[in-house]
Amino acid sequence: MNTEELVELGQQLRVDSIRAADAAGSGHPTSSMSAADLMAVLLAHHLRYDFERPAHPGNDRFVLSKGHASPLLYAAYKAAGVLDDEELRTFRKLGSRLEGHPTPRRLPWVETATGSLGQGLPVGVGIALAGARLDRTGYRVWVMCGDSELAEGSVWEAAEHAGYERLDNLTVVVDVNRLGQRGPTRHGHDLDAYARRFRAFDWHTIEIDGHDVDAVDRAYGEALSTRGQPTAIIARTLKGKGVTATEDLEGLHGKPVKDADEAVAELGGPRRLTVHVQEPVTRSAQAPPADGGRPLELPRWEKGEKAATRDAFGQALTALGTAREDVVVLDGEVGDSTRAGLFAEEHPDRYFECYIAEQQLVATAVGMAARGRLPYASTFAAFLTRAHDFIRMAAVSGSGIVLNGSHAGSAIGQDGPSQMGLEDLAMMRAVHGSTVLYPCDANQTARLVAGAAGLEGIRYLRTSRGGSEVIYGPDEEFPVGGSKVLRTAGADDRLTLVAAGVTVPEALAAADALAAEGIAVRVIDLYSVKPVDRDTLRRAAEETGCLVTVEDHHPEGGLGDAVADAFADGSPVPRLVRLAVRTMPGSAAPDEQLHAAGIDAEAIAATGRLLVEQAMVP
Amino acid sequence: MNTEELVELGQQLRVDSIRAADAAGSGHPTSSMSAADLMAVLLAHHLRYDFERPAHPGNDRFVLSKGHASPLLYAAYKAAGVLDDEELRTFRKLGSRLEGHPTPRRLPWVETATGSLGQGLPVGVGIALAGARLDRTGYRVWVMCGDSELAEGSVWEAAEHAGYERLDNLTVVVDVNRLGQRGPTRHGHDLDAYARRFRAFDWHTIEIDGHDVDAVDRAYGEALSTRGQPTAIIARTLKGKGVTATEDLEGLHGKPVKDADEAVAELGGPRRLTVHVQEPVTRSAQAPPADGGRPLELPRWEKGEKAATRDAFGQALTALGTAREDVVVLDGEVGDSTRAGLFAEEHPDRYFECYIAEQQLVATAVGMAARGRLPYASTFAAFLTRAHDFIRMAAVSGSGIVLNGSHAGSAIGQDGPSQMGLEDLAMMRAVHGSTVLYPCDANQTARLVAGAAGLEGIRYLRTSRGGSEVIYGPDEEFPVGGSKVLRTAGADDRLTLVAAGVTVPEALAAADALAAEGIAVRVIDLYSVKPVDRDTLRRAAEETGCLVTVEDHHPEGGLGDAVADAFADGSPVPRLVRLAVRTMPGSAAPDEQLHAAGIDAEAIAATGRLLVEQAMVP
Repeated sequence: MNTEELVELGQQLRVDSIRAADAAGSGHPTSSMSAADLMAVLLAHHLRYDFERPAHPGNDRFVLSKGHASPLLYAAYKAAGVLDDEELRTFRKLGSRLEGHPTPRRLPWVETATGSLGQGLPVGVGIALAGARLDRTGYRVWVMCGDSELAEGSVWEAAEHAGYERLDNLTVVVDVNRLGQRGPTRHGHDLDAYARRFRAFDWHTIEIDGHDVDAVDRAYGEALSTRGQPTAIIARTLKGKGVTATEDLEGLHGKPVKDADEAVAELGGPRRLTVHVQEPVTRSAQAPPADGGRPLELPRWEKGEKAATRDAFGQALTALGTAREDVVVLDGEVGDSTRAGLFAEEHPDRYFECYIAEQQLVATAVGMAARGRLPYASTFAAFLTRAHDFIRMAAVSGSGIVLNGSHAGSAIGQDGPSQMGLEDLAMMRAVHGSTVLYPCDANQTARLVAGAAGLEGIRYLRTSRGGSEVIYGPDEEFPVGGSKVLRTAGADDRLTLVAAGVTVPEALAAADALAAEGIAVRVIDLYSVKPVDRDTLRRAAEETGCLVTVEDHHPEGGLGDAVADAFADGSPVPRLVRLAVRTMPGSAAPDEQLHAAGIDAEAIAATGRLLVEQAMVP
Repeated sequence: MNTEELVELGQQLRVDSIRAADAAGSGHPTSSMSAADLMAVLLAHHLRYDFERPAHPGNDRFVLSKGHASPLLYAAYKAAGVLDDEELRTFRKLGSRLEGHPTPRRLPWVETATGSLGQGLPVGVGIALAGARLDRTGYRVWVMCGDSELAEGSVWEAAEHAGYERLDNLTVVVDVNRLGQRGPTRHGHDLDAYARRFRAFDWHTIEIDGHDVDAVDRAYGEALSTRGQPTAIIARTLKGKGVTATEDLEGLHGKPVKDADEAVAELGGPRRLTVHVQEPVTRSAQAPPADGGRPLELPRWEKGEKAATRDAFGQALTALGTAREDVVVLDGEVGDSTRAGLFAEEHPDRYFECYIAEQQLVATAVGMAARGRLPYASTFAAFLTRAHDFIRMAAVSGSGIVLNGSHAGSAIGQDGPSQMGLEDLAMMRAVHGSTVLYPCDANQTARLVAGAAGLEGIRYLRTSRGGSEVIYGPDEEFPVGGSKVLRTAGADDRLTLVAAGVTVPEALAAADALAAEGIAVRVIDLYSVKPVDRDTLRRAAEETGCLVTVEDHHPEGGLGDAVADAFADGSPVPRLVRLAVRTMPGSAAPDEQLHAAGIDAEAIAATGRLLVEQAMVP
C-alpha cells in the first residue's frame, strides 16, 4: 500500500471502531482511534500471518495489551477479511465472539486474553522466548501497549526479561495518547520518558509520530532489522484522533462517540478496503511431541523412606521432561528450593530462569502454553500470590499451565509468615476451571506431577519443605478427583479425619491415639482438593457422622471449604469441625508451628474426641 | 566515628550476624555480611532515630527490604543498645521477637514486615509520601534493598512513583552482592545496569564500593543534600564479606556459616561497640486527629431511590474525610469509576493518585498506615488480585488499611471477565484478621464505609457498578458481623435465601415469587461476609432446614463458604445449596450475566423450590 492507502486504511479502522462501539452502546472507540494508524501499517506491511491457519508455526504473533481497544482489533480482522460487518456489529453482545476485551477462548487469532493492563507485554515476552529458543520458525511478536499501562511494574519485569534475553524477535508499540481513564497520564506526550526507561532495560527505542504512516512504516522496518535487542516504538498519538468531538479530549475514555454518524462522516465515511496480509515465513516447526517416544519412568521410593515432596516434585518433573519434549520448566530464582533446578540439569534447553519476578514467571508460562508447550512454573506457594492477577487472566485465556507452590504452610518453620503459603489454596481453588493437588508423600507427588500433565486449564501442585515418611507404594495410583482412605474400621468408624499434605501424618497419629482409646477413626487423604472426592466424603459422613478437616492453611477457602462444598447440593451433612492456622505464626521449628496452630496430632485427637462425645448427646 | 571505628562497627555487625544465625541453626548471615558496612555508616552517622520513642514524629524511617538479612538488623539494634546479646541469640526461636524476617507486630522499630522481596521500597515510598505531603516533620526514609529483588516489577512501580513525586526524603541503598539465592544475579556487579534504570525513572544515583566506609559516608551525605529527586545508592559488595569460607562464594545463601567460631576469629572476634544514634529532628508533628472535630454527616438516600453502591462509597468516603482528618484516599487511576475521585474534589491534599500500579497502591496505603493515617485504597475488585502478595504482607505487618474493590462480579456486564472480580471474596476472606463487607444498597454502603474506619487490620469493601434500589432507611445500622433478615414469616419459613450485594434484590424477587406459590421464604442480607453472623444463620437453619446461598463470585471461597463455615464447629447443619458463577462469563448485559450464571431471581426460585421439595422426602 502507498501512503495514501495506508492513511485510508487507518481511517477505515477508526470508522469501524466507532461503528462497533456505537452498535454496542459501550466500548472504547477513542482508545482505538489513537492506535489506528499504527495498526494499519502493521497489518498492511509488516505482519506475517495466515488468518486461515492461526496455528501455522510461522505466523507472527500479535498481542493487543491495551485490550480495551478491542474495536480496533476487530476492525483490523474485518480489514483482513475474516470478519464481516454484520459480526462487527455484534460487539459486546451476548454470545458474540467479539467480547469487550479479546480472548482466545472465542477467537482463534487472539494469543492471550487481555484487559487487565500490563499483561500483554509479559505474555508477549513468553511467546518471543518460545520463538527464539524453542520454535525457531522465524516468527516475530508484536505487542501493542497503551501508555497508562506502563505504570504497571509487570511491564518492567517483562522489559527486564526481554532485554536480558536479547529478544530481537519482539517489538512493542506504545500508543502514547497521553490520556488515561480519568485524565492525563504521568508523562503526557513526553516520549523520551518512556524511551529512556526502555533503553535503560537494554531495548532499542524509536520515537515517532504515530499518525505519520511513513514514519510508522520506517519504525517497523527498523525494528525488523534490529539485532540483539528487542525494540520499543514509542508513538505520539492523539486519543480520539480524527474526529473533532473526540480528538485529544478528556472525559471520553470508554464511551461510544456521541454522534457516530457525524464522526464517521468527518472521517470520510465507511470504506471497504481489504488488506492482503503477508504470508508467514515458511520454515516449518516440528510440534514438540507430547510423547517423546520414551516411556515415563517416574522416580520410586519405598514405603518408610523419608523424602520431601518438593524433592519428589523436582525428580518427577525431570523424568516427565525426558518422556515428553513439550514440557518446559520455569522458576523464580528459587529452583534450588523448589527443586525445579533438577530439571535444569537434565534439560537445560527447556529450563527458563525467570529470576525474582513472579508475574513474569506466570506470564512466560502462559506465553509458552500459547505456543503449544506444557509449562511447569515454580516458586514458593506464598509468592504465587504475587502473580494472582496473571493466574486469573490465564484462566480467562483458557491457558494450560501447571503451577507449583513449594514451602507451603506453617510447616516451613523458622523463616516465619512472610514465606508461608497460607492463602494459596483459597487463591487457586477460586480460579475458574482449576485443579488443586496437595500430595503428602514422595510417590504420590511423582504420580500427581505426571497426572497434572494430562489435564486442562490451571493446575496447582502444593509441595512441602520438610521430609516426610513415604506411606504409599510406588505403584499406587492417584486419580485426580480421588482420595485415599488410609485408616478405617468400616462401619465401626465413629469419626473421619480429612487431611492433605503435611497434616496426613498428623491425622494418622491422631487416629492411632484415638483407636488406642477405643474410638475407631477413618482417615482420608484428600490429595485432590479440587475437584474433591464427594462420594468418599459423603460415605464417610453417612457412616461416621462426624468429620474433622485439618489443614496447614488459613481457615478460609482451603481444605475445609472444599470438604464443606462436597455437601452443598442439598444432601444431608455431617457434624463438621475445621482445624486450620487461625493465628499469625512467628518463627519456630516446624513441629512447634503445627502445635501452635493446633493442627498437630495432639490437637486433632483432642478435637476428634470432643466431637465424638458431642455427637453422642442426643 | 572515624574511619577505623566505622570499619570496626561493620565487623561487629558481621560477627553478631554470624553468631545469631549460628545460635538459630538457620538464617542468612552471608546476606547480612555484604551490607554490614552500609548499615554501620548509616547507623553511626546519618540515621536520626530515638530508639526509646519509636513513635517520635521526627524519627527517620528505616526499611530493610531484603528482610532475610534480619541478623544484620538485629545486630544493628544491639549496637544501638536496645537489644542484648542474650536476646540476639533467641533469633528464630519460638516466642522470640527476632523473627526470621522482621515484623512490626513484634518489634517497635520495624516499619513494615518484609520477607517477600520487592516490597520494602514500595512501602518506603508510601512512608516518604506521607513525610513529604502530610507529616512534614523532616524525617527521611532509608530503604535497604538487595540486588536480586530489583527484578520485581513492584520495585519499578515504586521507582516510578517516587521519581514522579520527586521524593527527595527517600534514599534507597542497593546492596549489590551479585549473588541471589541459587546463583549469580542477572547483572552481577554491573552497577550501572541498576543505576541507569533508576536514572531513567528520574532518580539521582551514586555508585560506590559498599565496603569503603568513607565512600559510603560521602554517598549518604550526597543523598541528604540532593533536592527534588530520590537517591539510589548502588553499592558494590561481596556476599559473605570478610570471611574466607564465605566471601563472594556461591551456594551459601540462607545458611549459617559452617565454622562460626573460626569466622568470628577471622573477623577479629566479638566487639562491644555501642553507637550513639543521632536524635531526630525536633520539629514536632501534630498527629492527625481521628475526630476532626466535626460530626460525621453521611449522605442519605430515601427508600426506593436508585443508586450504585460505588456512588455511595465515594460520597460516604468524602463525608468521612470531612469528619476525620486522618483519612487518606488512594486510587489506581480509576477514581472516576470507583468514585474515590469524589473525595479528591473535597480533600485534594489527602488524595493520592497511584496510577495503574495496584501493588504500589496497596504499598502506599501500608506506608501511610505506618505513619498513623487511615488509608482507603480503591480499584476494581478484579485488579486488587494484582496486589495479593502486598495485602498478604500487610496482614503480616498488622497494618490497618481499608481496600475497596468496585465493579465486582459478573454484574458489570459488557466489559467481560477480565474486569470482573469473581475471586476477590476468596482472596480477601483468606487474609489473616480481615473483615469483608459487601453492601447491597446506598445507605448500607455509607454506614459500612464509616464502620470500617473503626476496625483493625485489613478491611475490604466490595461495591457494584450498576444502580440498585435503596431498600434500607438512612438511619438503619449495620454492625460488622451482623446481617439483616429482609423477609420472614417466622416459624412458617421453609427455606432461607442468603444473599449479599447484587444478589439481594434477586433473592427478594425469588422470595416473592415463591411466597406467591405458598412457600414462605426467609431472606438474609449477609452484608458482613467475614465475620459472619453465625447466630442468624444457625437460627435460619434450625427453623427452615434449607439454605440457598447466592453470590456473584466463583463458587469457591466466597459467600457460600462463609455460610458453610458458620456450621463448622460440630453443630448440626442444614441442607445447603450454593448458587454462584460457575462458568467463564463473556460479554453481555448485566441482567443477561446474572441469568447466564444462574444467580438471578428465576434461578434462585427454581433452586429453592427444588430444595424444599427434596426436604419433604423423608
